[in-house]
Amino acid sequence: MRHFDCAVIGTGPAGQKAAIQAAKLGKSVCIIEKENVLGGATINTGTIPSKALREAVLHLTGLGKRGLFGEFSRVKRNITIADLIYVSQQVIHHELALIRDHFDRNGVELIWGAARFDDDNVIYVDRPDTFEALSAEVIIIATGTRPARPASVPFDNKTVFTSDGLLKLDHLPKTMIVVGGGVIGVEYACMLAALGVKITLVEGRREVLGFFDSEISEAFQYHMRRMGITLRLGEKVAKIEKLSPVASRALPAVAQTLTAAIAVADPTSPVGGLGALTASVTGDPVPVAGNGGSNGNGDHYHDHGHQDAPHAPLVQATLESGKLLRAQTLLYAVGRQGTTGALKLDKAGLHSDDRERLKVNEHYQTTQPHIYAAGDVIGFPALASTAMEQGRLAVCHAFGVPTTSIPELFPFGIYAIPEISMVGKTEAQLTEAGIPYEAGVAQYKELARGQLLGDETGMLKLLIHQQSGQILGVHAIGTGATELIHIGQAVMALGGTVEYFINNVFNFPTLAEAYKVAALNGLNKLRHV
Amino acid sequence: MRHFDCAVIGTGPAGQKAAIQAAKLGKSVCIIEKENVLGGATINTGTIPSKALREAVLHLTGLGKRGLFGEFSRVKRNITIADLIYVSQQVIHHELALIRDHFDRNGVELIWGAARFDDDNVIYVDRPDTFEALSAEVIIIATGTRPARPASVPFDNKTVFTSDGLLKLDHLPKTMIVVGGGVIGVEYACMLAALGVKITLVEGRREVLGFFDSEISEAFQYHMRRMGITLRLGEKVAKIEKLSPVASRALPAVAQTLTAAIAVADPTSPVGGLGALTASVTGDPVPVAGNGGSNGNGDHYHDHGHQDAPHAPLVQATLESGKLLRAQTLLYAVGRQGTTGALKLDKAGLHSDDRERLKVNEHYQTTQPHIYAAGDVIGFPALASTAMEQGRLAVCHAFGVPTTSIPELFPFGIYAIPEISMVGKTEAQLTEAGIPYEAGVAQYKELARGQLLGDETGMLKLLIHQQSGQILGVHAIGTGATELIHIGQAVMALGGTVEYFINNVFNFPTLAEAYKVAALNGLNKLRHV
Repeated sequence: MRHFDCAVIGTGPAGQKAAIQAAKLGKSVCIIEKENVLGGATINTGTIPSKALREAVLHLTGLGKRGLFGEFSRVKRNITIADLIYVSQQVIHHELALIRDHFDRNGVELIWGAARFDDDNVIYVDRPDTFEALSAEVIIIATGTRPARPASVPFDNKTVFTSDGLLKLDHLPKTMIVVGGGVIGVEYACMLAALGVKITLVEGRREVLGFFDSEISEAFQYHMRRMGITLRLGEKVAKIEKLSPVASRALPAVAQTLTAAIAVADPTSPVGGLGALTASVTGDPVPVAGNGGSNGNGDHYHDHGHQDAPHAPLVQATLESGKLLRAQTLLYAVGRQGTTGALKLDKAGLHSDDRERLKVNEHYQTTQPHIYAAGDVIGFPALASTAMEQGRLAVCHAFGVPTTSIPELFPFGIYAIPEISMVGKTEAQLTEAGIPYEAGVAQYKELARGQLLGDETGMLKLLIHQQSGQILGVHAIGTGATELIHIGQAVMALGGTVEYFINNVFNFPTLAEAYKVAALNGLNKLRHV
Repeated sequence: MRHFDCAVIGTGPAGQKAAIQAAKLGKSVCIIEKENVLGGATINTGTIPSKALREAVLHLTGLGKRGLFGEFSRVKRNITIADLIYVSQQVIHHELALIRDHFDRNGVELIWGAARFDDDNVIYVDRPDTFEALSAEVIIIATGTRPARPASVPFDNKTVFTSDGLLKLDHLPKTMIVVGGGVIGVEYACMLAALGVKITLVEGRREVLGFFDSEISEAFQYHMRRMGITLRLGEKVAKIEKLSPVASRALPAVAQTLTAAIAVADPTSPVGGLGALTASVTGDPVPVAGNGGSNGNGDHYHDHGHQDAPHAPLVQATLESGKLLRAQTLLYAVGRQGTTGALKLDKAGLHSDDRERLKVNEHYQTTQPHIYAAGDVIGFPALASTAMEQGRLAVCHAFGVPTTSIPELFPFGIYAIPEISMVGKTEAQLTEAGIPYEAGVAQYKELARGQLLGDETGMLKLLIHQQSGQILGVHAIGTGATELIHIGQAVMALGGTVEYFINNVFNFPTLAEAYKVAALNGLNKLRHV
């Protein structure tokens, strides 16, 4: 039985950084991967593919440049899934090679197979024909999450799917219902809307991305609606059903909001003669007054018995409020659950919660002090960036290496369209804590660089302590938000005040100038306090 | 005669910020503009138009995305000057409105006309039909610069021009000689090369952008050459002559390097039948062995007497080394000179240097303590960003307001292709000063975000003090370099060390992660010291 100072389960961001950190400390370390590729969801089904798609979407649609470049902006008019996957695959392959190279250069032993505990120091690694037992002083569980798949949802990976299934679609649907307004739901909703897919997004809370500053979420929702996304906020899905091809064309009483569309889709015309217009009308994710709906007006679509309506709705979601939504496809993006089920945690004396996730203390220790957990498997915020840091901090703690980390300055970055990022506190948090602050705001349209980029909607907001001038939070929405936030983060971490931005010289023209504009705006307001 | 606390001459970045600062201090302030538009060279002929062109070029050519997107990247295949100007004009109009609005909101009195001193407190403002006299306690000279136009260069704004003339070209030339490897020369050389113009750049020093870190200049020169730009470094132009249409086709003995091209451009074929290939060959900015050339091989182009060779060279530059360069056009970008000639400086007791520029002390005071100068008119670095800060600092000093400014942390941003930026010291400066440092480098290709952007060539370098870990300089080349630099600038200004980047969490995937990668690289090297 091989013995290691440190065994890491899972090769996603948390596992990678944990293993590399242990190796850099001179420890013998192995990392165990049960899939046949490295990198976990970040590389293969989550962060990287979705960000690669996003880059492709932004570039291929010319979104955000259209204001300035008009007709030149749309690079390729008929975008297929193949176009998008092409980009994604190249990036993934490169990332995989990089990870492999990092392991090799640092002497991290990569072990393929499915890990399960035998006791709290011994792990069995199962492979198709064989298995291996190994022991380790310190064990890091970084097995990540997978999309939740409730049994009540009729997943089929073609019509009804999670984000994993979405990436395998062989064509772009015309219409989609997105259930869930968290990070994954909004990122895909924006991307697909940019590609011309008609989206209806359903979220149980009153706003999407509830952990963001409400001015930013509000701006973001405004942009989502302007992209043509229908938001159904404060609504819960009661039932999701697939429609048979015939039933899908026999629509029930249509809501009044559809009157205009119905005028186009004259039911007395032959379906074959209506062309693309009708197809896209009947394919929209439309509210249809069904059971409990009170606004049906008695109009009916007639079923003409045609077998080939290409954009007919194939899935129906019934909301608790009684509304029916129909679309060609449905993306289920409500929560992810841990993947600890096969680990036999009980043999190590551990227990997961009802979503197979693990609870840890501030050092990322589970109830067994030498077994740590890091990354998505421990829950919020479940971002690749924080997962990496958690993996690193867990290993440093395990081997007694002091670290300086400022968890309250961990940034959040959401790669929606537009991009959103934040660090520090929100206005609501500061108000609740009774910390007096002023907000300084810069609109991208005030910046030469914003003009040059054609980004008229971006903004950056500084939350400034009314007395000390300290920066309490930075919130950004728009081009480059995830990059820009790190300037404010450095100033916060190093104790700078709003004066830093006033006295600093920024390259011209940059979006970074937003900090100076926002600082001036905040100081002007503070003068009147 | 109206009296002001402060009079500002010139509405470029230095003048704008000076006037706004004076107004914010509660002073009565006027700003005088002799052109019929606001904003100076920055808005009208310099920074903004060139950056707008650059954005247009990057977007329309898809440059930098081609690795990932292949054929989809080239948005519009036949790019005309009109396409480019269209973008530029929109941005300019918006910027002009913003400046006007800032003046109005802050109560800055805008006075149109040409300023000249009557004495050191009185300024006459001349207009076509009238003039006005005004007096001011404090005067800020922010009249900027214009391109130098030596009498020996046959400027005609069509074939031979400065950067101002370039913007007015009604079509893209096939070939261009760029004289001068400073900021303006390299920015336009890169842009035009991206558009397919064959560029030969002549620079008297051994490298372009000599004030940058030499690893960065070297990388930049490598990229310029890969874009097809021919660099003639350490070469001086002795003579620039326009060629008559007939003479231009009667080429002298052709250098051996052209043998291949000559084989294509068979001189016995009729010119009209050679088509685009020959046209572009004869239109290239080619070295031709002329007076003093030792490598002529006796071959000749024959003049066929055709009158309509559309891409025939129209201008010839003779280098001091004897080389002849020929092209359709020549951009003269060697230096800019002050625009103080009409100010009657002597009446205020002031004197300019031989390039009409003013010398100032560390407070931006001229030899008259109440007359300040700021912006390009005082010379290096002649960037819009520093000009703004100089204007602000001058006014604060004039009215006794304390400021904290760290001139050694003023950043440099060059909007070439690729983008370049730096803050702090170069390796050469540190070596000369005997400061022990280590360099930590991150290649964009190591970053997921670099992969997603398709930027395989970008890099970021941290210069780290060997003992203290302090950041002494940050140097970046590649996508977003001018934005990224501000993260390092904040850490430097606020006394952070390389540990900050190690302990910090960056959004994933971002280019900002380059700081962490570079910090780790630097620390690894330091371990071996």
